[in-house]
Amino acid sequence: MQRMKTGSMLMVLVAVGGFSLLLARQPDELGQRPSRPGPDQIPGYTYGRSEVARSPVTLADLESLKKSLLFTEEDVRYLRMSKPILADQVDDILDVWYGFVGSTPELVYFFGNKQTGKPEPRYLARVRARFGQWILDTADANYDQAWLDYQHEIGLRHHKLKKNVVDQASSVPQINYRYIPALTIPVTTTLKPFLAKKGASAADVEKMHAAWVKSVLLQSILWGHPYIKDGEF
Amino acid sequence: MQRMKTGSMLMVLVAVGGFSLLLARQPDELGQRPSRPGPDQIPGYTYGRSEVARSPVTLADLESLKKSLLFTEEDVRYLRMSKPILADQVDDILDVWYGFVGSTPELVYFFGNKQTGKPEPRYLARVRARFGQWILDTADANYDQAWLDYQHEIGLRHHKLKKNVVDQASSVPQINYRYIPALTIPVTTTLKPFLAKKGASAADVEKMHAAWVKSVLLQSILWGHPYIKDGEF
Repeated sequence: MQRMKTGSMLMVLVAVGGFSLLLARQPDELGQRPSRPGPDQIPGYTYGRSEVARSPVTLADLESLKKSLLFTEEDVRYLRMSKPILADQVDDILDVWYGFVGSTPELVYFFGNKQTGKPEPRYLARVRARFGQWILDTADANYDQAWLDYQHEIGLRHHKLKKNVVDQASSVPQINYRYIPALTIPVTTTLKPFLAKKGASAADVEKMHAAWVKSVLLQSILWGHPYIKDGEF
Repeated sequence: MQRMKTGSMLMVLVAVGGFSLLLARQPDELGQRPSRPGPDQIPGYTYGRSEVARSPVTLADLESLKKSLLFTEEDVRYLRMSKPILADQVDDILDVWYGFVGSTPELVYFFGNKQTGKPEPRYLARVRARFGQWILDTADANYDQAWLDYQHEIGLRHHKLKKNVVDQASSVPQINYRYIPALTIPVTTTLKPFLAKKGASAADVEKMHAAWVKSVLLQSILWGHPYIKDGEF
């Protein structure tokens, strides 16, 4: 694997269809995929609901963190620009991401049954639906209290505090912290060709991609909070 | 600050000369800067020395982490390519990075005296020398045990376990975890123009930049280890 060139790795990413086809939403006879569920229909999706606990990170902390990431209104603008470009490509994007996870034992492990190790299809499917909504939410984000609180909830769901709970899954108890910021790279690298598919200029594709890198890294830092020793975040 | 466009922020980055000029290595009458100290002459630089403790992260862990970051031999190749391009621009790069830190109160705070808050010039200078060497080490890295062990040492020096120790500084006890992965962005964003200065093709500049993003993020994840609750990394 160490010698695998990026080109080969990307081929693996797109070639591993078998795993994600278990989950891909198949087109009907006219070649149309079923329309995406609205947010209210996504199991376990609680963005903006009162049951979501207050984040231990404050809005002032968030502003400081955004400064350190060079995250500005321009990035927000390019994230918004990406939304109509990505919105009807969500299933194709998820196919690539699930293909990557499915072909990487260290990662698909976190979807596996804690006894048998076999990936849990219901768990995978429920997470996939929320992952698709997350693409839209990332493009739409306005960094307010509701957004901040939901980042903490997402962090808890990677951590043993809440992993498996909302999906009643029988999977391993926790995702290792290390993979959370790391996945910024495959998520944003594989996103770039999709950003380029609707005629945006090369310069705009670069700026949208750069904004996505900042946003995903920002989110991954916030998701890490439950893993960090008290007072050290 | 929230409304500050990227263009303005970059202007701040390059315009804040005052702070970094305290530390910049001034050219002599012929316009030559003093040659860089060799690694043996850099205070507190202990890469490869036997006193550096074994990392709690294994080489096998490192390989898995590299996979999750899509980090391949191609990235190593592009990092190596960057070394001769960056090697004689190190001081200019550090001026930009120190300008950014100096103009961001949340960040320069971590160089400040714990009583007065005033930045400690000796501490800043000693860190700067090691930061310059770090640019070369990142381009040269071969991901072996010595490299892995030194990443853990760097992490400890951000954490209260070892911050201030090697420089006998009287600064605040710890850098908040959150800023460590975040600084991947300013470090690599500001690096890109320097990568482009020696005639490399636009495609090669993109690949060198992408390799630097992966490498800096990988390192920042490893530096986070001391902050992570036991067994959760």
